[in-house]
Amino acid sequence: MKVGILTIGNELISGKTQDINSSYIARLVTAKGWQVAVTMSVPDDENAIGGALSYCMSLAEAVIVTGGLGPTADDITTEAIARACGLKLVTDEIVLANIKERFEKYQIRWTDNNAKQAVFPEGAETIRNVIGTAWGYFLKRDGKIIFVVPGVPAEVQRMVPESVLPILRRELETSASYIESRTIKLSGITEARVDQILADVNFEALGVDVGFYPGFPEIQVVLTARYSTEQEAKARINTAEKHASERLQQYIFAYDQDTLEGIVARLLTEKKLTLAVAESCTGGLITDRLTDIPGSSAFLERGVIAYSNKSKTDLLGVSEDVLRDYGAVSEQAAILMAEGVRSFGGCDLGLATTGIAGPAGGTEEKPVGTVFIALADGRKTICRHYSFRWERRRNKTITSQTALMMLKRYLRGESKHG
Amino acid sequence: MKVGILTIGNELISGKTQDINSSYIARLVTAKGWQVAVTMSVPDDENAIGGALSYCMSLAEAVIVTGGLGPTADDITTEAIARACGLKLVTDEIVLANIKERFEKYQIRWTDNNAKQAVFPEGAETIRNVIGTAWGYFLKRDGKIIFVVPGVPAEVQRMVPESVLPILRRELETSASYIESRTIKLSGITEARVDQILADVNFEALGVDVGFYPGFPEIQVVLTARYSTEQEAKARINTAEKHASERLQQYIFAYDQDTLEGIVARLLTEKKLTLAVAESCTGGLITDRLTDIPGSSAFLERGVIAYSNKSKTDLLGVSEDVLRDYGAVSEQAAILMAEGVRSFGGCDLGLATTGIAGPAGGTEEKPVGTVFIALADGRKTICRHYSFRWERRRNKTITSQTALMMLKRYLRGESKHG
Repeated sequence: MKVGILTIGNELISGKTQDINSSYIARLVTAKGWQVAVTMSVPDDENAIGGALSYCMSLAEAVIVTGGLGPTADDITTEAIARACGLKLVTDEIVLANIKERFEKYQIRWTDNNAKQAVFPEGAETIRNVIGTAWGYFLKRDGKIIFVVPGVPAEVQRMVPESVLPILRRELETSASYIESRTIKLSGITEARVDQILADVNFEALGVDVGFYPGFPEIQVVLTARYSTEQEAKARINTAEKHASERLQQYIFAYDQDTLEGIVARLLTEKKLTLAVAESCTGGLITDRLTDIPGSSAFLERGVIAYSNKSKTDLLGVSEDVLRDYGAVSEQAAILMAEGVRSFGGCDLGLATTGIAGPAGGTEEKPVGTVFIALADGRKTICRHYSFRWERRRNKTITSQTALMMLKRYLRGESKHG
Repeated sequence: MKVGILTIGNELISGKTQDINSSYIARLVTAKGWQVAVTMSVPDDENAIGGALSYCMSLAEAVIVTGGLGPTADDITTEAIARACGLKLVTDEIVLANIKERFEKYQIRWTDNNAKQAVFPEGAETIRNVIGTAWGYFLKRDGKIIFVVPGVPAEVQRMVPESVLPILRRELETSASYIESRTIKLSGITEARVDQILADVNFEALGVDVGFYPGFPEIQVVLTARYSTEQEAKARINTAEKHASERLQQYIFAYDQDTLEGIVARLLTEKKLTLAVAESCTGGLITDRLTDIPGSSAFLERGVIAYSNKSKTDLLGVSEDVLRDYGAVSEQAAILMAEGVRSFGGCDLGLATTGIAGPAGGTEEKPVGTVFIALADGRKTICRHYSFRWERRRNKTITSQTALMMLKRYLRGESKHG
């Protein structure tokens, strides 16, 4: 099956906003074993939308449209699509009641332009939006299908996998085929190196497609198999995954929907261990990531962002002598920070970061990107020295990733230094 | 003038690679005062390329094509474009000699498929590539112009600004024009409400385009004016901005490239004030945002992520009585957290958050989304109660935004409660 993707918005075609919806949807569609025939972006303009929709429909059996479903005057996607399809616009009273209810519940002032979001082309079936007020919908025309969802990426990332793709499969998928896929998430390795390490695995002979999706700070390797039975597809994926995982073991931090912070949280919870974190260069990013996981209060006792020397002394017990003799960015300071936060918090584990995030603060001896990460468990303290090479935000990100990787390895008993 | 952008490559339409060329080129084209009519991505397929080229040419006077100019068999852009335009392919001997010279210079082994990169549609004028072997070219057809450049982003980022746009201006630009724009960033208001508040401003009569770009947790209003002189464009923007800013004043946190954390950081630095932050429900997100700003160590003394009751008592001085009688999520606790972190840190200001981020932990009396934010300056402590309505990550984000807004208003002397 061929799919067209049409994203709508002046902000996209002015280059003001990077269109992340197209590639997100393209990836999901491709992973299902379908083919993207074209992706298009057009401005909030009725003729442009109508023309692009027709073009997509000439190439594909299904079109997924995002954007232009807001309550304001420049949001005209629904009018444009109704006109292009020769359909009237009708108000869906259930949706209208639902939107009004939402406004009341959260005590937001109702303005009449919000009623626009309950208007759909006649015959459209609505798709619920669980995180926003703009509902989506789909329409069938000449054996083809048009989906329309809001353009907010968080909403696309709920509605497309949870509603659009299942409906698409139900409505149009004819050949009985089963797609199985596995995502391997890696950290601390380059794409070229992954490619080299996997060069001796003949994925084609294994009947599995392999794709690389480099991101920062992680790289994803996605394996996909499409067979007539679930059993066959699963068996193919399992074999291919075993080959890949064996070779990449030390860089893997998660599979599929799992995140690094989610795995660390699960391990800490399972092992009933408590954690205290002392952050300097990461500025709270480690605890921010850990507290994104529901239930993190079960293991996270405290975090300390020790930016001043006084806070390092008062809250972590790092002596003024050490700060003077070795500096706040030093192995000595990192070790004392991890041990201090652990012991002040009465916790099982203490994790600490200190470094120079940049752009200023680097010296000949300790250039920007110099980072020390320490992990204390009351018996022993691991400390490692890193030299990262990015700008400020990326240095913070890679440091948080590396610290969580260190903690994950420790909890899994994989640490060479543990 | 209208411009179409066509990016070619299987990796783009499978979602494997994010298409950064489209938005890059769109931004440059828009900044020149031209308009992007459509952006399209299609696979390395002759029919798909020919069809998309025709579609772009039906909407625009100029089309900029990237990708598919490599030496391998799947690079077929030039053949597809020649066929779509009904042109023969010819070898450019100067380009061929230049490519061979380059191979010799860098001692790369010559293989005959490289000669393909010296083949162009008849009548095309070549565009030198200073950093790669794939030259670009342009073709004039029916008063319109087609540019073709390689898809490597680094090459696009040299060839488009240095060659494509100057040629385009020379060949097609008729009227000189100047573009001025202003972005107004808002928080704590819905898009529909912004629309309503601005309804009485006649932007069209002011000669200014207005666009709304809703995000989370901010909404951007972008004003754009296009005139023959810089002076005129600036004057139009200034007048329109004044009307918009007057009406939206209390929701505005920044203009153009500024961020909320950047403005707070600048105000604290200018006023030589120090800050300590105590976070419960935001889990470090506030200090993470503040420490993204270079030089934040000048004002940020410490952050405390007080997840356990012990940490609230030890590090912030919140008494066990208060935690027992009112709970950790209470006005009383928030106030003591802000006052405690300020006084323990010896700082000018203390900022604190406590709340229920969800999904669990809510009660009838304090449902998920209940948040208290407090700001202490040693004389007075402000505390406000909020009821947010999102899932965990968004509740954290909106709480951090609201806390930084409270701090910004205090620092600007705008706070009603200060």
